Amino acid sequence: MSSTFGQRIRLSIFGQSHGEKLGCVLDGLPAGEPVDMDGLRAFMARRAPGGPYATRRREPDTPQIVSGLYQGVTCGAPLCVLIDNTDTRPGDYAALRDMPRPGHADYPAQVKYHGAQDVRGGGHFSARVTAACCAAGGILLQLLRRRGIVIGAHLLSVGTVSDLRFDPLRVDAAALAAAQTGFPVVSDEVGRRMQALIEETRARGDSVGGIVECAVLGLPVGLGSPMFDGIENLIARAVFAIPAVKGIEFGEGFAAASLFGSQNNDAYEWRDGGPAVQSNHAGGILGGLTDGAPVIFRAAFKPTPSIALAQHTVSFSARRDAILEISGRHDPCVAVRAVPIVEAAAAIALAEEVLTDERSRAWN
Amino acid sequence: MSSTFGQRIRLSIFGQSHGEKLGCVLDGLPAGEPVDMDGLRAFMARRAPGGPYATRRREPDTPQIVSGLYQGVTCGAPLCVLIDNTDTRPGDYAALRDMPRPGHADYPAQVKYHGAQDVRGGGHFSARVTAACCAAGGILLQLLRRRGIVIGAHLLSVGTVSDLRFDPLRVDAAALAAAQTGFPVVSDEVGRRMQALIEETRARGDSVGGIVECAVLGLPVGLGSPMFDGIENLIARAVFAIPAVKGIEFGEGFAAASLFGSQNNDAYEWRDGGPAVQSNHAGGILGGLTDGAPVIFRAAFKPTPSIALAQHTVSFSARRDAILEISGRHDPCVAVRAVPIVEAAAAIALAEEVLTDERSRAWN
Amino acid sequence: MSSTFGQRIRLSIFGQSHGEKLGCVLDGLPAGEPVDMDGLRAFMARRAPGGPYATRRREPDTPQIVSGLYQGVTCGAPLCVLIDNTDTRPGDYAALRDMPRPGHADYPAQVKYHGAQDVRGGGHFSARVTAACCAAGGILLQLLRRRGIVIGAHLLSVGTVSDLRFDPLRVDAAALAAAQTGFPVVSDEVGRRMQALIEETRARGDSVGGIVECAVLGLPVGLGSPMFDGIENLIARAVFAIPAVKGIEFGEGFAAASLFGSQNNDAYEWRDGGPAVQSNHAGGILGGLTDGAPVIFRAAFKPTPSIALAQHTVSFSARRDAILEISGRHDPCVAVRAVPIVEAAAAIALAEEVLTDERSRAWN
Amino acid sequence: MSSTFGQRIRLSIFGQSHGEKLGCVLDGLPAGEPVDMDGLRAFMARRAPGGPYATRRREPDTPQIVSGLYQGVTCGAPLCVLIDNTDTRPGDYAALRDMPRPGHADYPAQVKYHGAQDVRGGGHFSARVTAACCAAGGILLQLLRRRGIVIGAHLLSVGTVSDLRFDPLRVDAAALAAAQTGFPVVSDEVGRRMQALIEETRARGDSVGGIVECAVLGLPVGLGSPMFDGIENLIARAVFAIPAVKGIEFGEGFAAASLFGSQNNDAYEWRDGGPAVQSNHAGGILGGLTDGAPVIFRAAFKPTPSIALAQHTVSFSARRDAILEISGRHDPCVAVRAVPIVEAAAAIALAEEVLTDERSRAWN
Repeated sequence: MSSTFGQRIRLSIFGQSHGEKLGCVLDGLPAGEPVDMDGLRAFMARRAPGGPYATRRREPDTPQIVSGLYQGVTCGAPLCVLIDNTDTRPGDYAALRDMPRPGHADYPAQVKYHGAQDVRGGGHFSARVTAACCAAGGILLQLLRRRGIVIGAHLLSVGTVSDLRFDPLRVDAAALAAAQTGFPVVSDEVGRRMQALIEETRARGDSVGGIVECAVLGLPVGLGSPMFDGIENLIARAVFAIPAVKGIEFGEGFAAASLFGSQNNDAYEWRDGGPAVQSNHAGGILGGLTDGAPVIFRAAFKPTPSIALAQHTVSFSARRDAILEISGRHDPCVAVRAVPIVEAAAAIALAEEVLTDERSRAWN
Repeated sequence: MSSTFGQRIRLSIFGQSHGEKLGCVLDGLPAGEPVDMDGLRAFMARRAPGGPYATRRREPDTPQIVSGLYQGVTCGAPLCVLIDNTDTRPGDYAALRDMPRPGHADYPAQVKYHGAQDVRGGGHFSARVTAACCAAGGILLQLLRRRGIVIGAHLLSVGTVSDLRFDPLRVDAAALAAAQTGFPVVSDEVGRRMQALIEETRARGDSVGGIVECAVLGLPVGLGSPMFDGIENLIARAVFAIPAVKGIEFGEGFAAASLFGSQNNDAYEWRDGGPAVQSNHAGGILGGLTDGAPVIFRAAFKPTPSIALAQHTVSFSARRDAILEISGRHDPCVAVRAVPIVEAAAAIALAEEVLTDERSRAWN
Repeated sequence: MSSTFGQRIRLSIFGQSHGEKLGCVLDGLPAGEPVDMDGLRAFMARRAPGGPYATRRREPDTPQIVSGLYQGVTCGAPLCVLIDNTDTRPGDYAALRDMPRPGHADYPAQVKYHGAQDVRGGGHFSARVTAACCAAGGILLQLLRRRGIVIGAHLLSVGTVSDLRFDPLRVDAAALAAAQTGFPVVSDEVGRRMQALIEETRARGDSVGGIVECAVLGLPVGLGSPMFDGIENLIARAVFAIPAVKGIEFGEGFAAASLFGSQNNDAYEWRDGGPAVQSNHAGGILGGLTDGAPVIFRAAFKPTPSIALAQHTVSFSARRDAILEISGRHDPCVAVRAVPIVEAAAAIALAEEVLTDERSRAWN
Repeated sequence: MSSTFGQRIRLSIFGQSHGEKLGCVLDGLPAGEPVDMDGLRAFMARRAPGGPYATRRREPDTPQIVSGLYQGVTCGAPLCVLIDNTDTRPGDYAALRDMPRPGHADYPAQVKYHGAQDVRGGGHFSARVTAACCAAGGILLQLLRRRGIVIGAHLLSVGTVSDLRFDPLRVDAAALAAAQTGFPVVSDEVGRRMQALIEETRARGDSVGGIVECAVLGLPVGLGSPMFDGIENLIARAVFAIPAVKGIEFGEGFAAASLFGSQNNDAYEWRDGGPAVQSNHAGGILGGLTDGAPVIFRAAFKPTPSIALAQHTVSFSARRDAILEISGRHDPCVAVRAVPIVEAAAAIALAEEVLTDERSRAWN
């Protein structure tokens, strides 16, 4: 399997960059859950192409639910969402069949699928497919919010321009909402510098990387499992499904490696009738389980591999070196539009745990 | 599920820090594969406690295969490995039942298992359980090596003392072997400084974090899948099963977020009858698929949460703040012994893909 | 999960009887496999409603592949097939919301989904959803046939009228093809008696059960696994997904329970350079593995629960007994149209084993 | 995978007939569940060899729990049970390496594992491995009983000697308990005739088949799922893991195929504040979901393939026909000892559904 996720709440994603339709199937959702279509469209619009800092490709990305909903609520049957691909330009990619684009999956896909892969825009490997992730994640985010769980991300850095981090202990829903309006940053001034850098990078025909930081609020204590299905394992597995992600860290993450235990441990105090951490270096996760603090993680996005500058590659047919110049429409910084995708991935990672956990909680 | 991994080659791990036995079941291994028990014991010895920079707990960690082997080779039946827990001292932990240790899973586990969890040494959450990971990984490493795939890791940093990185493009089996002898570093001089820092940290009753870097050589091009089962997803899911891991990155990882596409893309050239990358910023993975370059990743380990210094925590019974002083035997730097565990986790993550891939390769 | 099947070749089915669309996603198909759309339509037509012995509902059931195909062959991306629901008459079912139909899932579904289920025509529980099974199975049957594996079923009995069984040792592709043309029986004379019984049953406002027998030819020896993923386990799990199936047996099946070992064992002889069975009481399966003989199984279908006769049921609202008279359009004998569905289920059950097996075969 | 079962409550079984140990791992059990070891031993004793109608092999089958239990209750960690193989006589099987036994998996296993399989007593294919199924099932049966769910089976037939069926509507715990004491039948007189037939069959060096009928009481309404994870699918998948099972049916099963809908439908009446069926032709399952009536199913066991009579087979080495005479110790009728194994398989099939369902029930 490759594009499915989950055990009892199972997601199956399909679609290619220039195929007829994209979409997903969500099997195992609880019945009786309303789906707010306006809210879903609004969420997907945050990812949709067309913005000033995004590809020029225009896609309305209107999700259509063709099964699993009855009288506006989930009916227990698998829920299928379809999205049309409208503005496809296969012509843009005809020349690439012979020359793999550096930084893209073209070459390994050519080997894996022995030439049968859909080369148009990267096919199933395209960031276009994240529209289907957002359709699934957007629905799951509604279920989670109904249970008091709020997920929000922001653009932490573009190139060397860095935003303020979320306060790992005090970040709240208002702070998340603020970062999600307009350009997805905490500090508007930093946002303007990021936008300037992106514009200048695009003008140079280049692209630039970035980091997205995400917080999950309201998770019950003790969610997750030891070993292979801990909260970190699940989120990491889902987030690495987003094209261009090359790293993920929780709490202090890599910085924790240069700390002493006396600095990194989160001491407890008795607060509001229970234990509470006094700091959140752990990013809200201990032994794979939530500890009651906000879950905080960061995902590193590499620069968009598609750049206008000439690049060295090879010609499969000529069996020798070649120079590639990529036309087409591309994001100069994928991290910008990745902000809602990271939220969707977190929802996909957590949905099953939350739902089965609330059950066991009720049952214990 | 929590301690199982894989689809057609399935691993199930069991055991607690102070339980009777630890072990694993590997179901779906190809038949006819010899298992070198001396090699397995030697691999596990690299993780075994008792070394100068490790806990003082003494465990021979002798793996015993009680099923799945016949006349020295795998027979197609599930393979079960058992490891005895001999040097257990539950007394060391009796006092902790009431006071959760900062940085450990004690508190969330208390909630998740509503008080029924095995508190002795962290139970199933203990790094002790990684002995079972190493038993499984050690066997899988033998299968992989037989197919030309070599996995090796080293200690990249302890606190602020850093070793040289592997050369991402030219690292070879000899370099990996060199780093695996004695103290697991590339530069012996750096190793001495790391050991001095660890000693001094232990003397202070503190602990320190570190980073482990791992390379996988010999993987065929096109291994892996897009989306949820890419090589990054699989390795990340397996590596986050190791206690204390808080971050993972592939290739340039987080550094790629501050690069431009023109810097980060790995150009191709035609070499030895096929395409080959001229650099390896991608860490050998594009779109979740291997590209023929060494797979390079780094895992960040937080400092051991168990420190001798007094820490603030709470008393469940008294329902108020408390001061905790931890006795017991602990590693001042878990990253040291984590080196072979990271290799084992990589083998666990890759085994199914390699075996099913070599099949599809033969079949295509 | 409920409507997904498989590990590395994963099927996800969606749709309700009167929803907007039905369909499926097939994830993990090998790349480069042509899909014969005419062949697929012809296969699905065998199941489609509208025939003389079927519901009067008219559905063209034209499958539309919206992802996973590129230039007529599978491209390695998940393949999604959509089928429109055109001739829906929700009005037929409005009255049933309050009164569960005996023999249908109405009452347990009301409890499981606490009233949120799609009641129209049974929603996801409807035999209508088998159109999606046939879309998936029809594609997989093409992949299997390309590898020399042929699957064919026939109607073995309707009520007490029984057809001849396939010869378990000598059944061949020609025999299967013959049974699939026209009314799906071996003996046309028996077929006429079955049709007469069905007509007379329909005239009485009643329904009748039947048995479908299926043969799978060309499977390599040693396919399958011991225990939970044997060929019998896989086929049984897939076949019980078909509404109205209440039993399955392989080879002699229940009759074997009254035989002696000396009668039931299939002796071997050396033929054509290898071992071959002299009889096929085992239905081609020993210890969950194929033994080289045709795989033979039978599925028992209960009579269609929807009958025109008045039935005793209850009124949820009145909280008392009630009399139900069902209008709507229903098959008097679901077993007739089930013949291709059973073939599809067998293909769904076997596809992953065949593809991964041919790989291991090539590789061993 | 082959010997693992379940999604969130996962079972992994290991062991061979003449290997060192057999056992299982149960991962995902709720924490805080006591395990009654005396009860477990008593349950396993019902399956243990050595009885008058069983193999002469003597095995105490003492289960040893080496992980997952703490202070007598499950602690949330994976639970591992070990069983020693003591009375092994590999010598009995040396001669069989070259000559596959008719009715056994020897020949397909030889092909699947290309000669590396453990041939001693059938290795992992041996009914000996059902001791591990009973260890797992015996523990799960305790969890189920604690939740008001009782599972009991009896020997319905041996050869042509048939016992009375359970009353599908009124069978209760007392009736199940009665059938489980002594020879596992409802009618002692029938039991005596069965035993006489078995003795006489053994004396002739032959074996005989039988049918086991099982009832599950106390399941909540609405348990299960449509399609691939319905109660029938789950039970069938688990029961076909028992060696020698060739068929399974629910409720009327195959007999339903010759009934009319007006005969087979189970009418509802309003009783005790809710709907209740007036008959139970469905075996308590509609659309894959429980309907509140007892779940009733029957499993057909073929005669033990190992018989003392000379049989025709082949010699792999001589590449020609051969005559086989089997020594060793075998059950003349596996169905007798299969009674508790069927109960265990039902518990394995239902455990995850029951536990996750009680959660959703509490939560809805």
